Amino acid sequence: MSEFITAIESKNISLALATKLLEAAAEKGKEMGIPFSIAIVDRVGNLKAFSAMDNAPVLSLEIAQNKAFSAATYNRATHEWYDRLKDDPPLLHGLVHTERLVIFGGGYPIKINDELIGGIGVSGGHYSHDMQVCEAALEVLNELTSKAV
Amino acid sequence: MSEFITAIESKNISLALATKLLEAAAEKGKEMGIPFSIAIVDRVGNLKAFSAMDNAPVLSLEIAQNKAFSAATYNRATHEWYDRLKDDPPLLHGLVHTERLVIFGGGYPIKINDELIGGIGVSGGHYSHDMQVCEAALEVLNELTSKAV
Amino acid sequence: MSEFITAIESKNISLALATKLLEAAAEKGKEMGIPFSIAIVDRVGNLKAFSAMDNAPVLSLEIAQNKAFSAATYNRATHEWYDRLKDDPPLLHGLVHTERLVIFGGGYPIKINDELIGGIGVSGGHYSHDMQVCEAALEVLNELTSKAV
Amino acid sequence: MSEFITAIESKNISLALATKLLEAAAEKGKEMGIPFSIAIVDRVGNLKAFSAMDNAPVLSLEIAQNKAFSAATYNRATHEWYDRLKDDPPLLHGLVHTERLVIFGGGYPIKINDELIGGIGVSGGHYSHDMQVCEAALEVLNELTSKAV
Repeated sequence: MSEFITAIESKNISLALATKLLEAAAEKGKEMGIPFSIAIVDRVGNLKAFSAMDNAPVLSLEIAQNKAFSAATYNRATHEWYDRLKDDPPLLHGLVHTERLVIFGGGYPIKINDELIGGIGVSGGHYSHDMQVCEAALEVLNELTSKAV
Repeated sequence: MSEFITAIESKNISLALATKLLEAAAEKGKEMGIPFSIAIVDRVGNLKAFSAMDNAPVLSLEIAQNKAFSAATYNRATHEWYDRLKDDPPLLHGLVHTERLVIFGGGYPIKINDELIGGIGVSGGHYSHDMQVCEAALEVLNELTSKAV
Repeated sequence: MSEFITAIESKNISLALATKLLEAAAEKGKEMGIPFSIAIVDRVGNLKAFSAMDNAPVLSLEIAQNKAFSAATYNRATHEWYDRLKDDPPLLHGLVHTERLVIFGGGYPIKINDELIGGIGVSGGHYSHDMQVCEAALEVLNELTSKAV
Repeated sequence: MSEFITAIESKNISLALATKLLEAAAEKGKEMGIPFSIAIVDRVGNLKAFSAMDNAPVLSLEIAQNKAFSAATYNRATHEWYDRLKDDPPLLHGLVHTERLVIFGGGYPIKINDELIGGIGVSGGHYSHDMQVCEAALEVLNELTSKAV
């Protein structure tokens, strides 16, 4: 007889880690000379931590949050969507209208040992710039977790 | 003299049937090894019954409901839209912005004797997966109604 | 030196348990002869499972979901709010406008060993009826978890 | 002849200051043993920086942001509203419905030399707790600006 499962365990990003990622992202932004908005959400897409660098474009505030939301709630980096959409016209014309879903670069799932714990979203430059900022932040995560081993 | 009609009859899916369809859909999902969100709405698109399989992506919760809503409120399977839009540019660029309308697969009207009684929407995989889950659920409906004859 | 915490563990209600609670709630509703809407959400308030009993009032569909959301996202039964508001005029006139917050009975946190795993919300009768339905469902949870010991 | 004015100068809170205020608020929250959501907005109410302490109630995420928004966009602490509403029935019953306006404690304007530069909002406890957290954060601002003299 199979066991009746009442609850499922999951992990969520801590504020301590979220703050470290924000700092690393803002550091990278300064280095690039571009003011970004940077959002960290937990694994279900709720806002965990946020920084708007000074003079970040107002439009970037919400896009950054939506990118982080998109990455966490489907466990997929936002830049990975377009390759899956481009030869699939119903998705290309349809999925893009999903509320809060962003299909261009700048949103990444945050994982520990391949387990989803949150998402990061960055906006303010071209999405290729936004992606560099995310990657700089996630590099810090790699360092932290490799130390932990 | 024409009759004065005061009210129009309609049929709506019962909770008993909706629950059977949810079970069949979740069964198919387990078999496929993908966690889906599954929504059943009544003929006017109001939520009747819903299940989120364990670990279903958060993004799928609303898409499943929107697919069921789309299917019931226009009496058309969501995967049938694109062929009707693709050579009609005003629709292709305009209709897709309709709130809650989904134009890719995974939403089906639920009918008895060709009469609309509700809709089912599934999300969590590629829409081709979502469609398989809907079809497994509607197969149960076929069995139930053919037995009824 | 204190340990750097990267993630926080939490538990979420399973679909298996959510389905059992829906069944128990609908059973109680039938016994009372009132058609209710019954919503189960996970610990962050996302919809997990839902049933609208046949002929449940349309208005109850969203209220049930909002009650479950309210109970889970503040870890407080909705009927406990009024006593805390009634002698605190700014809250009484202000808090009630919080989006999706319900301050009358019919929403309860779902807990295992005092740990929040979700919420249940019921609407369709007077809130005193809605509360009876929730309590019947939570009785099943008590039986399941006492057996588990 | 009166001068033709083409633009108006304003000051906005910097990310550096916003981050300091978040830290001071979270420090106070830890001391109190309550997990709060803390939001800092700029002078027009746009999100500047945000922290959700670990295990902050989901409901607090948006309330904190709305309190900060309310405080900055009307340049008034949220706890100051009720005294102005209570003997003015049209306002008491009407104004409270304004989207995002919070009329109970936990939101404060952030000022330098009496000039509005942003707002802080805190949610997670009773509003009297939320107010203590805001005040601890604003104390840091006082220290920073008195040192600057």
